[in-house]
Amino acid sequence: MDYYTPTKVVFGKDAELRTGEMLREQNATDVLIHYGSERVVKSGLMKKITDQLDKEGIRYTLLGGVQPNPRLALAKKGIEIVREKNIGFILAVGGGSVIDSAKCIGYGSVYDGDVWDFYTGKAKPAGAMKTGVILTLSATGSEMSDSSVITNDEGGLKRGVNSDYSRPAFALLNPELTYSVSPYQTSCGTVDIMMHTLERFFHSGSGLSLTDHLAIALIGEVMDSGKKALANPEDYDARANLMWASSLSHNGLMQAGNDQRGDWACHQLEHELSGIWDVAHGAGLAAIWATWARYVYKENPSRFAFLGEFLFGFAPSGNTENDALRTIAAMEEFFHSINMPINLRELGINPTDEELDLLAEKASFFSKRTLGAFKVLQKEDMRNIYEAAI
Amino acid sequence: MDYYTPTKVVFGKDAELRTGEMLREQNATDVLIHYGSERVVKSGLMKKITDQLDKEGIRYTLLGGVQPNPRLALAKKGIEIVREKNIGFILAVGGGSVIDSAKCIGYGSVYDGDVWDFYTGKAKPAGAMKTGVILTLSATGSEMSDSSVITNDEGGLKRGVNSDYSRPAFALLNPELTYSVSPYQTSCGTVDIMMHTLERFFHSGSGLSLTDHLAIALIGEVMDSGKKALANPEDYDARANLMWASSLSHNGLMQAGNDQRGDWACHQLEHELSGIWDVAHGAGLAAIWATWARYVYKENPSRFAFLGEFLFGFAPSGNTENDALRTIAAMEEFFHSINMPINLRELGINPTDEELDLLAEKASFFSKRTLGAFKVLQKEDMRNIYEAAI
Repeated sequence: MDYYTPTKVVFGKDAELRTGEMLREQNATDVLIHYGSERVVKSGLMKKITDQLDKEGIRYTLLGGVQPNPRLALAKKGIEIVREKNIGFILAVGGGSVIDSAKCIGYGSVYDGDVWDFYTGKAKPAGAMKTGVILTLSATGSEMSDSSVITNDEGGLKRGVNSDYSRPAFALLNPELTYSVSPYQTSCGTVDIMMHTLERFFHSGSGLSLTDHLAIALIGEVMDSGKKALANPEDYDARANLMWASSLSHNGLMQAGNDQRGDWACHQLEHELSGIWDVAHGAGLAAIWATWARYVYKENPSRFAFLGEFLFGFAPSGNTENDALRTIAAMEEFFHSINMPINLRELGINPTDEELDLLAEKASFFSKRTLGAFKVLQKEDMRNIYEAAI
Repeated sequence: MDYYTPTKVVFGKDAELRTGEMLREQNATDVLIHYGSERVVKSGLMKKITDQLDKEGIRYTLLGGVQPNPRLALAKKGIEIVREKNIGFILAVGGGSVIDSAKCIGYGSVYDGDVWDFYTGKAKPAGAMKTGVILTLSATGSEMSDSSVITNDEGGLKRGVNSDYSRPAFALLNPELTYSVSPYQTSCGTVDIMMHTLERFFHSGSGLSLTDHLAIALIGEVMDSGKKALANPEDYDARANLMWASSLSHNGLMQAGNDQRGDWACHQLEHELSGIWDVAHGAGLAAIWATWARYVYKENPSRFAFLGEFLFGFAPSGNTENDALRTIAAMEEFFHSINMPINLRELGINPTDEELDLLAEKASFFSKRTLGAFKVLQKEDMRNIYEAAI
């Protein structure tokens, strides 16, 4: 397994005040500043950033409006602007959606064809315009990851592409910028971070016990910090743990030394939910995880039991299957404790039979792929899980 | 605290077979292959490497002979060769000494003055020729670190320099290449890895509990794997944990989010020991640590107690000072269990009064610097620790 995390991270209070310095290091002269809601402008954050660019003599163009589950159409608009204005660097100010959209612009800006080709697998990225990140939401880990996930409004398809070209050149991580994140988004972020590590934990090959124990230490801290951040949104230490855990969960560290990739079925199953119903990714993951876990745990119950032993301190009972089920139930309990759903109804979705068929069709790329590694899922397994998750 | 780990890591069996591919990626055409003992030639490893360079049409020059505590004189010879032959990339095949020597050559090759200037602090690096690593010893973490430590035979001065320019471009980590590491060197490496994390753990500022718990998870795995590798030198999992822990202990992860640097007094105190007596770095660290710990723990006993609680599972007794002392004793017990010394006599050194004076003089840069952060040590403190460590 290769491990490559070239992103330069500045962590701590006032990290965003090093934007100018970082852009100068990147020799950026014309920058697209990409963001989501106007809150980053109203909060004064944008001015703090543009003041630095002005000081450095760096030209910039603003492009806001990124939505959760970022849309292809807006990214394409970004690509047009980059070409028109001869822009050479993309600065993402926001959370995972903004970063993923910026990465999409980065791919498209150096590609002659349709950028969606990379997301459908029709083409492989051979380069990308560089991006930098000022993070305002701890969740997706996109600030250090090689991943970009985009939703195409035509067909509601949500697809991802992974390549080292999209790893941001820098990421400025100031936990204080996440004080204003709502309780709901804080919970969603907590789940998302946990799931990025859990997906890797449930690989099917051999790996390092070092990586396992780092993963469990991280998940434990995320659970603890998620609760603390809900109780006190301005708890710096909790926000800092969540922010750094977000980056470490998705930068490759949590799969280092594994000889196989992780499971990732829950992520793919969730993509179809949020592609159709536009639910929050973290909430969607929480709503599907336990059902997935109970569907697959018999493949290797001791893996779930091991997680329970070191994460929750459960002494082995002698019955590994029971220990596995106890771990799954404890995880559900945790999700409930941070007001996250553990099934689709709690998520606010009650799919019809036709919708279950459609979900399984889309998740299986119309029967062209399987999902998962811990247990390989066929289209009928996917439908079973969706149905059982209601 | 900035976090920057650009080194591309290939981890696992046969990792060294990707040397050609990595050098091609770096556009290397003329390479200096730097190594230590002739064992890497006799074992067939060197041929595996040069075969790939031949295949890629990459020219190379061999420079072996790096000793433990690598010498400035040999690095200077390397710099001459690089200049003469117009070499553009340095490939280190070995452990920390070889890598540190390669980094020194890297600095000197792009600098007009005396490369020792960087190690004395007379000059600051403004660049370096790139290096790549094929690792054969898990210990120093130099394969991902920004650090290079060199010994100048004139005066027996051992000095280090840190800069991001020296972080290797790639590191190929095949745990099997460490099967032949001797029991003694395995133990020294185990201590060295633990100490890189412990030095950072004993910072004086504020930090992330996430980083604390990752650190303790790592130290626990290193202790466990060190014992297993001694019992069975060809235990792949144990060797793999040690190798990856070596990189993670010194690449910055174990200090991420800390607002102050770590303590590092033990490292500096040990440098003077190995500068004079040429002892193994890891053994020297083990011989000094507990004495240092008992000298400083009252500054913040709860930090030692916290380590004991999560590393050794010691329930807090209500008396934090006792808990701290219990942690220190447990660490000594561990060092003994892997046949490491816990004082200077066990290390084979019994310094005279004059030698104690000299050690303190050198460690304090002749009274020009203090050491440590957890507790700031003056020259007399350094002498006290050396003396108490006998």
